[in-house]
Amino acid sequence: MSTEQATANDSINAIRTLSIDAIEAANSGHPGLPLAFAPVAYLLYAERMKHDPADPLWPDRDRFVLSAGHGSMLQYAVLHLAGYDLSLDDLKAFRQWGSKTPGHPEREFHVPVGDDGKPQPGATPLPLTPGVEVTTGPLGQGISNAVGIAAAERYLRETFGREVQDHRTYVIASDGDLMEGVSAEASSFAGHVGLGRLIVLYDDNSISLDGPTSLSFDEDVEARYQAYGWQTLRVDDANDLDALRAALDAAEAEESRPTLIHVRSIIGWPSPNKQGTHKAHGSPLGAEEARLTKEALGVDPDATFSVPAGVYDQFRAGNRGPAERAAWKERFAAWREADADRARAWDAAWAGKPLPGLQDALRAVPAEKEATRVSGKRAMAAFAPFVPTLVGGAADLASSTNTVLPDAGDYTRDAVGQNVHFGVREHGMGAIVNGLAAHGGIVRPYGSTFLQFVDYMRGAVRLSALQNLPVAWVYTHDSVALGEDGPTHQPVEHLASLRAIPNLVVLRPGDSVETQAAWAAILEDVDGPAVLAFSRQGIAPLPRDGGDDAAWEGVRRGGYVVKEPAEDPAVVLVGTGAEVGVAVDAAALLGEQGIAARVVSLPSWELFDAQDDEYRESVLPVGLPSVSVEAAVTFGWERYVDVAVGIDRFGASAPGTELLERFGITPSAVAGRAQELLGA
Amino acid sequence: MSTEQATANDSINAIRTLSIDAIEAANSGHPGLPLAFAPVAYLLYAERMKHDPADPLWPDRDRFVLSAGHGSMLQYAVLHLAGYDLSLDDLKAFRQWGSKTPGHPEREFHVPVGDDGKPQPGATPLPLTPGVEVTTGPLGQGISNAVGIAAAERYLRETFGREVQDHRTYVIASDGDLMEGVSAEASSFAGHVGLGRLIVLYDDNSISLDGPTSLSFDEDVEARYQAYGWQTLRVDDANDLDALRAALDAAEAEESRPTLIHVRSIIGWPSPNKQGTHKAHGSPLGAEEARLTKEALGVDPDATFSVPAGVYDQFRAGNRGPAERAAWKERFAAWREADADRARAWDAAWAGKPLPGLQDALRAVPAEKEATRVSGKRAMAAFAPFVPTLVGGAADLASSTNTVLPDAGDYTRDAVGQNVHFGVREHGMGAIVNGLAAHGGIVRPYGSTFLQFVDYMRGAVRLSALQNLPVAWVYTHDSVALGEDGPTHQPVEHLASLRAIPNLVVLRPGDSVETQAAWAAILEDVDGPAVLAFSRQGIAPLPRDGGDDAAWEGVRRGGYVVKEPAEDPAVVLVGTGAEVGVAVDAAALLGEQGIAARVVSLPSWELFDAQDDEYRESVLPVGLPSVSVEAAVTFGWERYVDVAVGIDRFGASAPGTELLERFGITPSAVAGRAQELLGA
Repeated sequence: MSTEQATANDSINAIRTLSIDAIEAANSGHPGLPLAFAPVAYLLYAERMKHDPADPLWPDRDRFVLSAGHGSMLQYAVLHLAGYDLSLDDLKAFRQWGSKTPGHPEREFHVPVGDDGKPQPGATPLPLTPGVEVTTGPLGQGISNAVGIAAAERYLRETFGREVQDHRTYVIASDGDLMEGVSAEASSFAGHVGLGRLIVLYDDNSISLDGPTSLSFDEDVEARYQAYGWQTLRVDDANDLDALRAALDAAEAEESRPTLIHVRSIIGWPSPNKQGTHKAHGSPLGAEEARLTKEALGVDPDATFSVPAGVYDQFRAGNRGPAERAAWKERFAAWREADADRARAWDAAWAGKPLPGLQDALRAVPAEKEATRVSGKRAMAAFAPFVPTLVGGAADLASSTNTVLPDAGDYTRDAVGQNVHFGVREHGMGAIVNGLAAHGGIVRPYGSTFLQFVDYMRGAVRLSALQNLPVAWVYTHDSVALGEDGPTHQPVEHLASLRAIPNLVVLRPGDSVETQAAWAAILEDVDGPAVLAFSRQGIAPLPRDGGDDAAWEGVRRGGYVVKEPAEDPAVVLVGTGAEVGVAVDAAALLGEQGIAARVVSLPSWELFDAQDDEYRESVLPVGLPSVSVEAAVTFGWERYVDVAVGIDRFGASAPGTELLERFGITPSAVAGRAQELLGA
Repeated sequence: MSTEQATANDSINAIRTLSIDAIEAANSGHPGLPLAFAPVAYLLYAERMKHDPADPLWPDRDRFVLSAGHGSMLQYAVLHLAGYDLSLDDLKAFRQWGSKTPGHPEREFHVPVGDDGKPQPGATPLPLTPGVEVTTGPLGQGISNAVGIAAAERYLRETFGREVQDHRTYVIASDGDLMEGVSAEASSFAGHVGLGRLIVLYDDNSISLDGPTSLSFDEDVEARYQAYGWQTLRVDDANDLDALRAALDAAEAEESRPTLIHVRSIIGWPSPNKQGTHKAHGSPLGAEEARLTKEALGVDPDATFSVPAGVYDQFRAGNRGPAERAAWKERFAAWREADADRARAWDAAWAGKPLPGLQDALRAVPAEKEATRVSGKRAMAAFAPFVPTLVGGAADLASSTNTVLPDAGDYTRDAVGQNVHFGVREHGMGAIVNGLAAHGGIVRPYGSTFLQFVDYMRGAVRLSALQNLPVAWVYTHDSVALGEDGPTHQPVEHLASLRAIPNLVVLRPGDSVETQAAWAAILEDVDGPAVLAFSRQGIAPLPRDGGDDAAWEGVRRGGYVVKEPAEDPAVVLVGTGAEVGVAVDAAALLGEQGIAARVVSLPSWELFDAQDDEYRESVLPVGLPSVSVEAAVTFGWERYVDVAVGIDRFGASAPGTELLERFGITPSAVAGRAQELLGA
């Protein structure tokens, strides 16, 4: 069939009918958004975006984020029609185990399987769903990720040049996305730094899950976004292609402000009985209503998963992406040739790895008696030259968390330095950092605040773990030892709550050397997200039997023996962070009583658990009595020890040393519990 | 000394010098806000607010929230000067162990100690710091709590009448408060429902911790608040008392919109060397700068903790609070007398307890095979008549979480029903619900969403636990069994992360009867916050040896034996929620193999841990092999069992029953693990 036989309207209706059919087949899903916003998705993928289904990872592609992730079939349908590796069978498997079309868009990469049926070592991981940039669904995250994606593009564009990095980021967002505080934070930041390549299409359908949005949401969204420094535009009917095109023209012409295009739509249009109501939002239309909706669209009500003749051609005919990619490849080759150093930097950046030499630089940082947040500062100064595209910052606490890259400049409206001032916006920071990582090219972006305030950004931390994003979360002031600020600022349950998250490496180094080793492990070894927990208070260098090498090896393995007694140990004392030193002193007290105690530092449960049985047994032998000490709740420590010394209550306002004393985080208290355990 | 000898300026300067001196004595604290905003605090406590230091818990007092909690000395200084039970010695103990003046304002109540040195049973708990309404410090929470406080006042005013409830809520908020997403959510809600009695004084000092706020914050705050539907006013100089008075007049005259008064100030004014810089924000001025600042104020630079003659009288002379309280008491007595029923309802509301009869009503709800979220709906319908001042709602998921009080109406701009539509604003909901509880008079306010999204509101959940607020957090869709929505919506680590929070009771009932008992326990027994975790999927009524009574007793105690085998048990199978049924079926499978298995339901670890040794041992005997099953991470289960069956990974998108099968949450998998454990 020829292109002439299908129209834009046919393509748009194909998006709608594929969405209806997949949701009916799954008997689960959200038809309202795909029906209403099909014209918008069509324009983006068929006319506007610079993308090439043949290479979904092309670095200079335009990015698309479906912030309203519940409308996943909208994205799957356009990816299929545009020619991505997503078949009709994949659409038929919507929301089924192992399919490429999960309930919400999932950023997930897997190592390709070879002819032997096994994952091929060294092979480039491939996306589960080609064309999906980030996992969305938890409202507000996608639009906020997109801020980070646009920030990454701008950083790379101004660093490497427009020849190789020069694209836009498009978002479809819902009412729910804009009600969430995380999007408010990220949007204010985006306006502040003037991310002109960010274009958000806001689906204003006046309906949310519980009924009309007027139940809870009648603010003036456009005025709010103007207050943030955005350009705002309005399209009164989502089915008006020319109005949408004009708005996109104006958005794309604006380089210094992000743009919000306020699009009024009718949810579930043209479903005769459900459009415009919350019934069209979160449940399948049902067989009869699906038929009636197809009739209203003027398509065969009996056909399912049917794409009319000519639609594929029509959909793809206007895509200038393949030609642009071909041109980009030529430019890129010449660009590489012209400067081998920047080509190497580009390659390292996109491989997500530091330049060679990082570990030597970190090993050269001398041990000091200091807070690990200060050790972290020294680590950043040492590794900065090896991660030229690292971008990160703090939620208005950089001067306390010490997470500034020296001489790297600030990321502002006028300049793209590496240091980002996220403002007092922890959740927004988390989502933006996730976006920086999802874009690619930014090695190990990081976000920083006090450990206490991870609670504010937990939604984003979880999504970093779910997507295996290579980010670092740097949390300082990691115990009650921070002192006078009191229980609102003193973490107690936070280490446990982070350890409970799957696929998140938590590292709490015990002194300055462990801190250097922890940063090295994260930058070199850990694929996914990692948490660093640093102390506010000073910590003396640990006296290690094995010297610094023991720390370097031990941190990578998550735990190791710091001190072994002369005779066979009668008890193992296990600590993390500042409390490894408490364990060392407790062991000395026990030694005075004739009790031989081994001291173990366990900076990372996750890395330790990943070691083989033999190594773990060599550090924490089964059957040897054991006591842990950590200035935090004891929750979870039963996994490793017989007795856990900790703080199973909220903290208090007082000087830090007094609090540790009052809460029993002292060498004598630990020695006493060990003696009790041994019946000594 | 007479009043004439001191002026308003003397009083204002006394606030400043007391703040300087307390922060110097502690060598810790934030002088910038107390110095700059002393005039505002003075006006509120000396001229504006309806308050009586003699009765800091008077129900009709105006409420004051220092959202910028780091400026705590501002509040302590005015409370002292106004005549609250907060002495100069208390100020001298600022930020010290056990003092009434912790680093941030803490809402904390303690039972008074009698002559015997022991807490007096039955005595009314007294506040740690009289005059402090809520714990603040984590930015954005206080202003959002204040939205809940104002919402409570409005509810009680329209329910009981202006004679007995008729006050305002004043807030001092900082830049940081307004950058946080939680305040954006709560402020949008406040504008939506038109809380005209809420007045926020925004301290715009252009400085945050990392330097000028322009580093990260240049949005138009007034325009944003106008977009939310607020009245906005501006005062260009925090030292201009008349301008402040005029703005407060306009704010107090506005009844249908909340008001934001944008007050420009100079942080740390008039410190000669630190004012207007971030150096004045978070550290003591230092001895020399303290002297210079006092000189600039025109007070004795050598005097510390010195209140000039006449200042106390000056400060208190204009307080109409005592007279208003006297008038209120007369009105209140007459009001009670006129209607004994409403007096009883008022008493129950302020005691925070349901009316008599609640438990019988809940016991009468028949057992059903149904999702516990549906059992929860039936519970709410049953208990609604007994909690006439209960106010709560969901974050746009009421139709899924089933948390609507039938026939109780909606809380809107035009009416004060009991059902609140918080919008897709989980964190704002959490902070607002905390405020509803902190106000008093609202029995067990609640907030509801999917268990997954507790991550978005964790900052507020933690503060409910820290303040021991009597709230209920109702979280449904409590496991991967929710199915197709996939891992972004499937909680796995959330139960563990909630159990890790001190002073938070988590309840995951195993069937419809346990659900009724859980709601009864929360409404009648639990003082502080409680979490309810409910299933999306249907659950059959548990076959209990002890019938319903066993469930009612067992839920209150956190755990109990559901089924005991005929012979002595060889193994205990422990479950929570829907997985108690899995344990029951696993026990049957084991029985077929000749292995006698006890089945235990453990709906609440916290309530169970509070039981005496004998009871706990009777349920989970030490030494008896044990296996737990919970469709969640196994983190923490080592505390109770030898082998934990769970899901130590993220979920996936597929039908729920298939996921449970694939993840091994099945009777046969549990029976298999038990056999392995027994070596059978």
